[in-house]
Amino acid sequence: MRTRVAIIGAGPAGLFLAQLLDAAGIESVLVERRSAEYVKSRIRAGILESASVRLLREAGVGDRIARDGIEHRGIHLQWPGERRHLDFVDLTGKSVWVYGQTEVTKDLMAARERAGQAAFYEVSDVELHDVESDSPAVTFTDAEGRAQRIDAEIIAGCDGSHGPSRHSVPRQHRRTLERTYPFAWLGIRADVAPSTDELIYAWHPDGFALHSMRSPTVSRFYLQVRPDEDLADWSDDRIWDALSTRLGLDGWTLHPGPITERSVLPMRSVVTSPMRHGRLFLAGDAAHTVPPTGAKGLNLAIADVALLSRAIAEWLGAGDTRLADAYSDTALRRVWRCTHFSWWMTTMLHRHGDEFDAGLQLTQLQRVAQSSAAATELAENYSGIPIEGLP
Amino acid sequence: MRTRVAIIGAGPAGLFLAQLLDAAGIESVLVERRSAEYVKSRIRAGILESASVRLLREAGVGDRIARDGIEHRGIHLQWPGERRHLDFVDLTGKSVWVYGQTEVTKDLMAARERAGQAAFYEVSDVELHDVESDSPAVTFTDAEGRAQRIDAEIIAGCDGSHGPSRHSVPRQHRRTLERTYPFAWLGIRADVAPSTDELIYAWHPDGFALHSMRSPTVSRFYLQVRPDEDLADWSDDRIWDALSTRLGLDGWTLHPGPITERSVLPMRSVVTSPMRHGRLFLAGDAAHTVPPTGAKGLNLAIADVALLSRAIAEWLGAGDTRLADAYSDTALRRVWRCTHFSWWMTTMLHRHGDEFDAGLQLTQLQRVAQSSAAATELAENYSGIPIEGLP
Repeated sequence: MRTRVAIIGAGPAGLFLAQLLDAAGIESVLVERRSAEYVKSRIRAGILESASVRLLREAGVGDRIARDGIEHRGIHLQWPGERRHLDFVDLTGKSVWVYGQTEVTKDLMAARERAGQAAFYEVSDVELHDVESDSPAVTFTDAEGRAQRIDAEIIAGCDGSHGPSRHSVPRQHRRTLERTYPFAWLGIRADVAPSTDELIYAWHPDGFALHSMRSPTVSRFYLQVRPDEDLADWSDDRIWDALSTRLGLDGWTLHPGPITERSVLPMRSVVTSPMRHGRLFLAGDAAHTVPPTGAKGLNLAIADVALLSRAIAEWLGAGDTRLADAYSDTALRRVWRCTHFSWWMTTMLHRHGDEFDAGLQLTQLQRVAQSSAAATELAENYSGIPIEGLP
Repeated sequence: MRTRVAIIGAGPAGLFLAQLLDAAGIESVLVERRSAEYVKSRIRAGILESASVRLLREAGVGDRIARDGIEHRGIHLQWPGERRHLDFVDLTGKSVWVYGQTEVTKDLMAARERAGQAAFYEVSDVELHDVESDSPAVTFTDAEGRAQRIDAEIIAGCDGSHGPSRHSVPRQHRRTLERTYPFAWLGIRADVAPSTDELIYAWHPDGFALHSMRSPTVSRFYLQVRPDEDLADWSDDRIWDALSTRLGLDGWTLHPGPITERSVLPMRSVVTSPMRHGRLFLAGDAAHTVPPTGAKGLNLAIADVALLSRAIAEWLGAGDTRLADAYSDTALRRVWRCTHFSWWMTTMLHRHGDEFDAGLQLTQLQRVAQSSAAATELAENYSGIPIEGLP
């Protein structure tokens, strides 16, 4: 079959790109290794920058965010004996929104179904062909076991860090920079009302803890653990005890509840460049991974796609390749900023190194709480720096 | 002999403390291992925060700074292809001053001589006694080989990182946190007019370089080198070539000149706490060391002494020990802030780690150049955060 843009990966990046291209009158086909049910149920990030919310609303998929999303003015930063609120709205004029990636994916899938454009789920053997030519193609085996081929003008690699797209940039052109952190997150979801109005990021001698949330009745919690931590060693009681200790503050109580999901998340930073090779463009986790501290992953994917959809629309619509030619450099500037911020939040909040590192972390946390400049620097990065070229 | 405050060390910290105590009508005796000539000729730091200048002026030793010091509005930050000026005055309302530590020391020594108070130079075998009692003492052998004893009410340890004072805080009460950096500075002084109006801090793939200055006719330069670098491997030509490369920018020329001094400086961070034990108080390098990037060492010593002189004056003058009791915690908050800033400047500007680290450094430098919040955070720390409790 033939289409204009073959999109590999139907996570939020691929789905959002399809949605924006559809709005620009550009046909696309989505190709996804997993089932639609699996993609919709994956539990991932849960904080949207206000620019992400605006982009999703402008793309016609913002109704549920407006209804079910929870707007937060900022976050709480905590260290022993202190919990300080940073008000992003006061500092930058911008808020953030609690709205799960799962929900974003559902909204985008529903929009895709309404648009009636093609999507292949549960495919295998995905291969990219001739990305350096004017007629690239994607081949795969569909859910029924049939060999398929999509000829396209452009291929968008939105297939995450394990997909084939990034490897279709020839090795001699590709640079991958990577950092593996010496810790992981033990994450749980619990059916209990949050014990806090906004997220709490806590430095503690035992390790980092985060109190997040999904809704007025569903809370998310994370504990810094070893990268090789065995979930079997963590009973419910041990998890709640550790959370109570690390998030503890005089006069504040953590309310436990039934744990409905638990997992250990590794922590990595990866930046692949360039983000374009010939007629292949990478977006989201296909090009970069950030550790979850600071909630940049999903927002970065949305920003990539906002840039990429305009670049593709200008190219295929008006024959103007300038934005497409600039895409990799433009996107990577923001990727590196968010990579740095995620690294900074991660290394400031997690126990690592020695007691000198702990001293640096505590003075940095105190500085953020006391200095308008330091607080603003955190707030601008957390609530989202502008996307170049977008209003 | 008997005095009110025995000051160990006649570097800028000890001399400035003696000056401030003298102004408060409190007698002190200075004890210094080196000769006055040696102390006056030691080449050290060269940038004063405006608060340091103000404190020195208020203490009556600011005439030469006003005449010979060079006021700078900020610094240049450089990375390949870019040199950006940060204007501290615009960002924070505060400037910095080029005025060598050697000159500060000379001014303070002259003032001490005018005040006619006692100072022992070229002493040996300095020992502190009974610092936990109400009658501490210092014993030493004077320049003529005579055994001396000073009985005092307070001992001020201003004797740097190698002096005996810090070791007089018993081991079980003392905590020393330390970081050794995997690089050093090769520093030179040259009889040549600076090729820049204000300091240039340059990140370069070959390593960090700094163009500093002492006067309109004397320049200072620094090159990142290995910690075990052998000066003998660095001919004048090699030094100027490396400086030209690392500081290079289209349309700008580095003017070489006769090199009059050269040395390799190790890079360390050290924080010793507490800064008080009984009647012993530590100030300056006796309690902490910072790497030179960011020019905090001398300024931190001046701030310590400003706090300590008030604490001693309140105690010995009015019998009020509150400031003395708070001294260690108050000083250490600022020490940690400056330790963090020095570590941050150092790790942002020096090549270390891998290419991922280089990516973090470059995006951080670009951020400082582009973001008012990030630039202000650097500027506030470089030009000097307020000294707690001082107007």
